Amino acid sequence: MMRLWTTLYLVVSAPLQIQCFATPPFHNSIHRGGSSLTASTSANIDASINNEASVHVVDSQDLFRQFAEFLRSHQASMIEEIERMDGSGEKFSRDGWGVFTDESCTDVDGTGGITRVIQGGDVVEKGACSLTIIQNGKLTKERAETISARQKDLEVGEGDVYSAAALSVVLHTRNPFVPTFRSDVRIFLVQTGSKEDKGTSVAWFGGGSDLTPYYLIDDDITSFHMNLKSMCNAHFPPNNEYKLSYAQMKQNCDEYFYLPARSEHRGTGGIFFDDLPATQSSFDFVKDVAEGWMPSWLPIVERNKEKEYSDQQKQWQCLRRGRYLEFNLLYDRGVKFGLANANPRVEGVMVSAPPMIAYEYNHVVEKGSEEERLMEVLKRPRDWA
Amino acid sequence: MMRLWTTLYLVVSAPLQIQCFATPPFHNSIHRGGSSLTASTSANIDASINNEASVHVVDSQDLFRQFAEFLRSHQASMIEEIERMDGSGEKFSRDGWGVFTDESCTDVDGTGGITRVIQGGDVVEKGACSLTIIQNGKLTKERAETISARQKDLEVGEGDVYSAAALSVVLHTRNPFVPTFRSDVRIFLVQTGSKEDKGTSVAWFGGGSDLTPYYLIDDDITSFHMNLKSMCNAHFPPNNEYKLSYAQMKQNCDEYFYLPARSEHRGTGGIFFDDLPATQSSFDFVKDVAEGWMPSWLPIVERNKEKEYSDQQKQWQCLRRGRYLEFNLLYDRGVKFGLANANPRVEGVMVSAPPMIAYEYNHVVEKGSEEERLMEVLKRPRDWA
Repeated sequence: MMRLWTTLYLVVSAPLQIQCFATPPFHNSIHRGGSSLTASTSANIDASINNEASVHVVDSQDLFRQFAEFLRSHQASMIEEIERMDGSGEKFSRDGWGVFTDESCTDVDGTGGITRVIQGGDVVEKGACSLTIIQNGKLTKERAETISARQKDLEVGEGDVYSAAALSVVLHTRNPFVPTFRSDVRIFLVQTGSKEDKGTSVAWFGGGSDLTPYYLIDDDITSFHMNLKSMCNAHFPPNNEYKLSYAQMKQNCDEYFYLPARSEHRGTGGIFFDDLPATQSSFDFVKDVAEGWMPSWLPIVERNKEKEYSDQQKQWQCLRRGRYLEFNLLYDRGVKFGLANANPRVEGVMVSAPPMIAYEYNHVVEKGSEEERLMEVLKRPRDWA
Repeated sequence: MMRLWTTLYLVVSAPLQIQCFATPPFHNSIHRGGSSLTASTSANIDASINNEASVHVVDSQDLFRQFAEFLRSHQASMIEEIERMDGSGEKFSRDGWGVFTDESCTDVDGTGGITRVIQGGDVVEKGACSLTIIQNGKLTKERAETISARQKDLEVGEGDVYSAAALSVVLHTRNPFVPTFRSDVRIFLVQTGSKEDKGTSVAWFGGGSDLTPYYLIDDDITSFHMNLKSMCNAHFPPNNEYKLSYAQMKQNCDEYFYLPARSEHRGTGGIFFDDLPATQSSFDFVKDVAEGWMPSWLPIVERNKEKEYSDQQKQWQCLRRGRYLEFNLLYDRGVKFGLANANPRVEGVMVSAPPMIAYEYNHVVEKGSEEERLMEVLKRPRDWA
């Protein structure tokens, strides 16, 4: 009894410190975890006894399974939605690995992934929607140390068992008036506990979504952020136990997608969260995040996809895409982790790269131009909602 | 007397270990140094007494100055040669900083650089030729530690004075049948000595040149390597004091320009050397390296620049350029160093980026195609000379 309540106490009382440890927009990036908090405990006698308590006591393993199921089915419905919206007739390719090598597999209890890519669409010049599930992986020494450093009350060591699941999306648009859309949600579960008490598992959620526009259409960016804000408000009332809010998650996003060498943010942001203890209520939030992706982006697409653009405007988009790639290769921890693996699935990691990228030496935007207006916001993020 | 001879003994007898510590194709990358050997000592009474000895006793400071002068004048003549060869009428822009902000400055005793860039030429789609000179810089703690770790007999600490000079070239070609050409030469000088004997300076050279082809024209690659081999042989006879040879420097190059995540070398290589003690004879070698750049590349340009190519072949070139950028952003230590500076000259560091880059998910080369033939050589480097 004591043990469980100690854990729950921590969930309720400790301030949630969102740490920009990794954004995993790609399959490899889900090899991560760690939190400043312990999260929901695995099923054990204490938990079943306390199941009726007002505090959410959920089985981490069970939550993980439900979440992985959700990701698998959400990937399928997103693919359909994007193909329908794109309208070109281009279809997502399907590249399955592990248990999902078999196209008919719906089993989320094994390790595997499905990388789905659309190239040459009318709206989406290149887009990817990738599912990854790792079951019963073994923590490397480095990863265990990272978790231990952040989870002071947990004892996690090399070889401990972890599981992870993620759905990552990036949609590079053809029309420079339609912003690139990036998003992901993920869960990380680790078997832990004290030395005497292995077999307890804790889990955390992470995720977010953000826009990278090439031209600043204020109403689009505002509507995107307003959507996120009202969704966040519905889940996190003021002074909630996690001290979590849209404002906090918006700031995390601005801070994470930043190129220090250029003193530039990558886009106009959105939300970014990490280390969110995997309870039933946080599951509900993360589900809403993922289900809100297309509703927050598609109206922006509809408003702009038919707009005419010049070669110069396309070139500007290609130049800005250079920053997108720079961020991914220089700073994104998911990419770093992915490529550092012994046998990296490089194409899976690099699936987020824009289709065509330009570099000019010392490109200077014109004074008073729309390009300059974008740059000002990338230098100094604005409050949009 | 004793002190000097001890130093010279080390020069002559210790095996030269070429260490792939950094390739500095860009101005920032010259912030480096370190060697497994001490090099030429600075002028002091001992040196002047021993000036007639058969061993080369040169003044490092003087050698540095001569080399910087050479770089400055070689940059100017290369620019002329490339513009003439390109034939489009496009000229290199000139971006001077530090002492070279003033266009008329020919002073190599101050800190500054000249970044020269050509964009949109007929042969060179984007090319850069950058001179950098740092005089009397202070070693950071990190850099001093790196040098100390490799220079066991030297005491180098944070704040010690260093100077560096480099000329770096990258020429991205329009025609996919003309390989991209990259090269640099550099010198690094540090004030060092024992605690009692500060004020001695040692210097090292580094540099090289290599090709990144998009289609493999065997005779071109062979002629490039044959040129390098005969030039190296002229300077380093078998069993020379530095144990240096074309074969060794070719291997260094293959090892350095390697993308581990893709198990791929970036191009067909050339030579790469580092930590070469700055003596008069090594100065002569490095000068020959730099003066050999255009003679080794221009005949290849002439043979291929008018060849017709398809959109598909251009796309292949753009895809391969993605690897070029990946290497620079993920692995090149010069770029890493450059961008890690407090106020990096980002455009100077990124000047090496190709003008247009493509990414396709999981691009597979056709069996038996010319693209496949290139890939085989990038997976398993060949002996070309």
